[in-house]
Amino acid sequence: MTTVRRDRFRTETQLIERITGAVPAVLDGRAGRQPLRDGLRLGIGDDAAILAPNGRTDWVLTCDAFLEGVHFLASRHPADSVGFKSLVRATSDVAAMGAKPRFFLLTLALPVSRTGAWLDEFLRGMARAARLLGLRLIGGDTKKYATVSISITVLGEIAPGTAVPRSGARPGDIIYVSGRLGQAQRGLEIVRRTPPGVLRKQLRASQPFRRLLQPHLYPKIRVELGGWLARTGMASAMIDISDGLSTDLDHVCVASGAGARLWAQRIPCAEIPAAHSKQVARRKLDPLQMALHGGEDYELLFTVAPRHVPRLRNAPGFSDLHAIGQIVRGNQILLVGPEGNSRRLEPGGWDPFRKK
Amino acid sequence: MTTVRRDRFRTETQLIERITGAVPAVLDGRAGRQPLRDGLRLGIGDDAAILAPNGRTDWVLTCDAFLEGVHFLASRHPADSVGFKSLVRATSDVAAMGAKPRFFLLTLALPVSRTGAWLDEFLRGMARAARLLGLRLIGGDTKKYATVSISITVLGEIAPGTAVPRSGARPGDIIYVSGRLGQAQRGLEIVRRTPPGVLRKQLRASQPFRRLLQPHLYPKIRVELGGWLARTGMASAMIDISDGLSTDLDHVCVASGAGARLWAQRIPCAEIPAAHSKQVARRKLDPLQMALHGGEDYELLFTVAPRHVPRLRNAPGFSDLHAIGQIVRGNQILLVGPEGNSRRLEPGGWDPFRKK
Repeated sequence: MTTVRRDRFRTETQLIERITGAVPAVLDGRAGRQPLRDGLRLGIGDDAAILAPNGRTDWVLTCDAFLEGVHFLASRHPADSVGFKSLVRATSDVAAMGAKPRFFLLTLALPVSRTGAWLDEFLRGMARAARLLGLRLIGGDTKKYATVSISITVLGEIAPGTAVPRSGARPGDIIYVSGRLGQAQRGLEIVRRTPPGVLRKQLRASQPFRRLLQPHLYPKIRVELGGWLARTGMASAMIDISDGLSTDLDHVCVASGAGARLWAQRIPCAEIPAAHSKQVARRKLDPLQMALHGGEDYELLFTVAPRHVPRLRNAPGFSDLHAIGQIVRGNQILLVGPEGNSRRLEPGGWDPFRKK
Repeated sequence: MTTVRRDRFRTETQLIERITGAVPAVLDGRAGRQPLRDGLRLGIGDDAAILAPNGRTDWVLTCDAFLEGVHFLASRHPADSVGFKSLVRATSDVAAMGAKPRFFLLTLALPVSRTGAWLDEFLRGMARAARLLGLRLIGGDTKKYATVSISITVLGEIAPGTAVPRSGARPGDIIYVSGRLGQAQRGLEIVRRTPPGVLRKQLRASQPFRRLLQPHLYPKIRVELGGWLARTGMASAMIDISDGLSTDLDHVCVASGAGARLWAQRIPCAEIPAAHSKQVARRKLDPLQMALHGGEDYELLFTVAPRHVPRLRNAPGFSDLHAIGQIVRGNQILLVGPEGNSRRLEPGGWDPFRKK
């Protein structure tokens, strides 16, 4: 290309910095116990913004886009998965603050050709997610468009000053994740390499196949766990794993001004079922790599001061929690292997604007 | 076509009904002085939802999409207009409740090729709108996409219970609009028929040309007037004219369970400058038709009980207010001509899902 590319971005973070440098914005990576000012407790730089209207509740607010051709393929992803997942994803950022999901606004742009059976199925999936999450629709906007473009704003409620930010991790804190990581990536790989017709048939006919794809098509989020961690004040920092462990842990470290050591053997990886292990091997998909860099698991990553660790056994879903490392001084994330050898772990998760 | 089209929609209203029928939703066309329940004062069916967290303030919440190829053309609309207008449009619904704009969230999906000079110009326009409106960015989401797709959520603040709904118009109330209607439509027609190169040159070189296109490219909204009408309790119903007078007045009438008589001669139409009158005539653009059905003026339409009318002269921008009709019993909107002859006025404004 002959045009100068100096203004292009290498990462989403740089793009966000460009936006917040140009537009009047409230920046704050540190959630304090006191409102910032003007009824706002937390601005840009965390999972969600927090309104603190001096009442008995804070409002946690976030928005998320879900786009055809980027986040889902019309030919492969069932419409009810698009409806379900778009709402769950957006809500995940609210759960990652420890808030209780309450209301949502839906911006839905779609072609007229999708306003028939496709829309019915989409709405069924979205309704199921809304019921599971305790969310009610309070507003939105609909538009005719060439492709399906969804943008969702979610509001959650939380006791004033108890939301868990990304920025509170301190050296010595233990790093936990919920559930197994890489399961969504595993599902995406299967969806990608299965012909659409076979995919639809398998999803209809095979219960194990559906179960295998569930984390990718119909992800679950840990609302109860997030709420418990906020309420008890046990977590010093928290984030949801949407872009991948390596990227989201990096967000926590940058916001907290700290580094981390991850114990490779303790990272809970997705299992590869025997029926798929050959194909997965052929595509050089390593379970640890998927766990480190695969996105969209929507599990919680949180840090706990050592003195609080014993109380963690009262957490909802405690048996699903895994201690995978420790916050340290500095600014590097090291991956420690079985023999104690360590290497630097670079953020390798999903970033739409990172150059390959 | 051979496929059955029974499930397609003829209007956006039907689409919204389909969504709210399927997904757990809070529906309410009537804003009461009492919170509905659970901290919500108003759900779907008005310009914006209202959160009432039992404090000294209510939060007004709305979202709006602004899409390349639908709301703007990359080849014709300057990027700073896209940034400016997308934020103003979204804020218009907050102003139409009488609330003070405070914060916004930006979902921005765009191609990498637009992250250079185009983004700079876009952000300049958005920053200018944010400063004019007193808005600060508190969150958002960025995505890579084939086209520019913008979704904005705006939060406004208002004294509890004072927001002006669409639903309060009563027979006998006088119908007012601010400003002149059809100016944005006039601008759009000029943009449509001017070759992109000429358009850019004219916008640079000609002050009168810029002024002519300002209502289309850089619309102003009546935040101060809306706030005054809410604070004084003078307006029984209010809406912004985004889809066109005939459509937005219909929204007020439906929500209020009433009809209206509009006095054709009192409707403030956009003037057609002599330099453009021939072309406009050739395209059969009638100023009254543009005022009745042209969208995107973002002026305020509100109703006032006769006993309050004398106090209206204290309103900010009083000289721009026009009494254009009266709310009546029934459910029809009649357009009354100069000789007292009347005809039924059907909603003819912008509706993305209406069949032509």
